[in-house]
Amino acid sequence: MRIDVLSLFPEMFTGVFGSSILKHAKEAGHVTFEVIDFRQYADNKHKKVDDYPYGGGAGMVLRAQPIFDAVEDLKKKSHKQPRVVMLCPQGERYTQSKAEEFAREDHLVLLCGHYEGYDERVRQFLVTDEVSLGDYVLTGGELGAMVIADSVTRLLPGVLGNEESAVTDSYSTGLLEHPHYTRPAEFRGMTVPDILLSGHHANIEEWRQKESLKRTWERRPDLLKEKNLSEKEQRWMEDFEKETR
Amino acid sequence: MRIDVLSLFPEMFTGVFGSSILKHAKEAGHVTFEVIDFRQYADNKHKKVDDYPYGGGAGMVLRAQPIFDAVEDLKKKSHKQPRVVMLCPQGERYTQSKAEEFAREDHLVLLCGHYEGYDERVRQFLVTDEVSLGDYVLTGGELGAMVIADSVTRLLPGVLGNEESAVTDSYSTGLLEHPHYTRPAEFRGMTVPDILLSGHHANIEEWRQKESLKRTWERRPDLLKEKNLSEKEQRWMEDFEKETR
Repeated sequence: MRIDVLSLFPEMFTGVFGSSILKHAKEAGHVTFEVIDFRQYADNKHKKVDDYPYGGGAGMVLRAQPIFDAVEDLKKKSHKQPRVVMLCPQGERYTQSKAEEFAREDHLVLLCGHYEGYDERVRQFLVTDEVSLGDYVLTGGELGAMVIADSVTRLLPGVLGNEESAVTDSYSTGLLEHPHYTRPAEFRGMTVPDILLSGHHANIEEWRQKESLKRTWERRPDLLKEKNLSEKEQRWMEDFEKETR
Repeated sequence: MRIDVLSLFPEMFTGVFGSSILKHAKEAGHVTFEVIDFRQYADNKHKKVDDYPYGGGAGMVLRAQPIFDAVEDLKKKSHKQPRVVMLCPQGERYTQSKAEEFAREDHLVLLCGHYEGYDERVRQFLVTDEVSLGDYVLTGGELGAMVIADSVTRLLPGVLGNEESAVTDSYSTGLLEHPHYTRPAEFRGMTVPDILLSGHHANIEEWRQKESLKRTWERRPDLLKEKNLSEKEQRWMEDFEKETR
């Protein structure tokens, strides 16, 4: 897969694209990352990428021309049409199912804005997807592009080892993770639940399932609405409700 | 404000903490960022920070000791108790109101995990907040820590200029932004709406309010549930509904 990023701050990406799983995935040939400063595409003498908004008001607007030209240049390097993804607060909330969708593409182009936003014509005529990380205000789209690059690269075949894949798979149960403990069994007076030291694998598995359900019920009841609970899980839910009365 | 990050991949942060608004805020003395590799706190010969989970299963668990010791060391440098924020998928969804809450603190400690997760005792006895960026799987907590650092730093007094503050303020209307356009009025046959070129400021303002409401209604109807609409806005809503029939 090819992931290209258009940004006015390409130096922001070096640390993230050069570490951990993204670094290894690149070295192993699963993905290429390129970060392009779209200022170089500006067709005016001072390489200006922004201008005042029509109709007045605060803030500057990113001009259409440099972005159109940069994306067209990238399209020439691709045999398929890329997904052109704009990071912006008005976008669709990013989720794991969007990451899975992007991971099936050959080529992603990620647009990082700053200032007030992009000229609307970029949105209307160039972009295929608009994505937002969540309801919080960030300085630009760069962190969003890193989140997409990381979450998508993890899903490419061969990137994660078996051990790590197993961890990711557990997310797909639709429940939050049960608690984990490791040595020592007692640390500054804080202990590990006896059952985890018992060696009874069936009991441990049942404890984990129940704790996973309990944590989800306490913290993310919205996830349970979409889930078909087994009879055992329904009984556990009744237990939780009794305990809080 | 002081923001300390505990991470096993400190090199990931250089680009983001050294660019744009975070760089300027640091240079102007509004905030300090320190990234600490908590591996240096491991009390064993090989500086091992993880170990097998009690009860078996895939993945490794981050040991309690290095994290407890690192946080205690940081607490000594602070006159007030810091907020100790764990980035993890089980955490509360990060929002702008959480960013505002964090921006009122003197000292934040951000814990970035990897592998299967942290020993549960970290969560139970050390951490004050658990935060998740959203429902997607990331390699570690580093990108979350960057998101918190950026969104919080922007809110510190004096960090943003007036122009940028005005832009951020527009977020607090509870609606998505209206479209923006800048020169040229025609770009490759794509034009700017006539009204924005008219010079009628009252009409432009009304157009923007209506477009802002329309975009919110189309993309984020959930935001409208919490909002008291004016009579004019209610009439516009009826228009939108008629238009889609």
